[in-house]
Amino acid sequence: MRDIMRLGSSPRWSDVVIHAGAARWVEVAEDASGDAKSQISQVLRQIDATLTQIGSDRTRLLEVLIFLADLGDAPILNEMWDGWVPRGNAPIRACVQSGLAAGYRVEMVVLAAVMPNEQRDH
Amino acid sequence: MRDIMRLGSSPRWSDVVIHAGAARWVEVAEDASGDAKSQISQVLRQIDATLTQIGSDRTRLLEVLIFLADLGDAPILNEMWDGWVPRGNAPIRACVQSGLAAGYRVEMVVLAAVMPNEQRDH
Amino acid sequence: MRDIMRLGSSPRWSDVVIHAGAARWVEVAEDASGDAKSQISQVLRQIDATLTQIGSDRTRLLEVLIFLADLGDAPILNEMWDGWVPRGNAPIRACVQSGLAAGYRVEMVVLAAVMPNEQRDH
Repeated sequence: MRDIMRLGSSPRWSDVVIHAGAARWVEVAEDASGDAKSQISQVLRQIDATLTQIGSDRTRLLEVLIFLADLGDAPILNEMWDGWVPRGNAPIRACVQSGLAAGYRVEMVVLAAVMPNEQRDH
Repeated sequence: MRDIMRLGSSPRWSDVVIHAGAARWVEVAEDASGDAKSQISQVLRQIDATLTQIGSDRTRLLEVLIFLADLGDAPILNEMWDGWVPRGNAPIRACVQSGLAAGYRVEMVVLAAVMPNEQRDH
Repeated sequence: MRDIMRLGSSPRWSDVVIHAGAARWVEVAEDASGDAKSQISQVLRQIDATLTQIGSDRTRLLEVLIFLADLGDAPILNEMWDGWVPRGNAPIRACVQSGLAAGYRVEMVVLAAVMPNEQRDH
């Protein structure tokens, strides 16, 4: 039984790392040609897909650290975010403006609890 | 018994999330009208209040990630920080300059261990 | 038996904090007089040294959050990083541009699992 599980390893990073009952991963938009709204929408859908992949769901998000290339996009983020986060089960959230790779408008570092059953399996 | 405990959930975020024996939360000054010294002082007091709320204390801080709107405020931060952190039980700390929401001078992402007894209760 | 272990505590921060089977620490170049390549190389060697100190190794890295003073240094980072990260056991990685203390080109926040045996000892 391994105590660390990695999904989607590339030479540069793993897509997801699971340890001690929690999964962590970084999301940027798969298609960075779109505007902030497009990229934020993609990132939220990608988080959903990863949650499904690890057998978790939005109610088990623990922390999301959000880097925006332009804090002027925060209202767009907040509108989409507020509709996406489950009421009563929101993660903690920090949101700051930082330089991102060319074309990217948003980068999110996500921490989510896996299911208690999953924890035993890892 | 739930494995995730959330305090102060709003539609956008939880004030505190506790999982696997550790609590995490984000602090900005409740009154952002003040200068850096005022805001840093507030944030440190707010961290104390949250530590008390979760039945923990400063000696159990694990990590504090600090975003300053202006790194020129670092000397003010360090002076207040050094008097606040318990000797021999400091957390790890990173401090970088990032854009923050208008008026905010500091944002801290805090990770602290809850008490071993608390861990069993969650 | 303490549930939190700290290494190298100074009045401002601990060098390493270990809790719940994971060690976390922040690295900047010990000699910040060099260029980005020098500093990144130092930081990676310093991470190796800390991993050795805690009885872990590169295959147990969970997450590395990288702050570059200039994202223009990302190609240098990536070249050194790709040769340093163990294939099939990469951590998750976020990399953004943030203001760092004068002279510093890179700051990394590292999370690594300690050895399962070590976890029991703490």
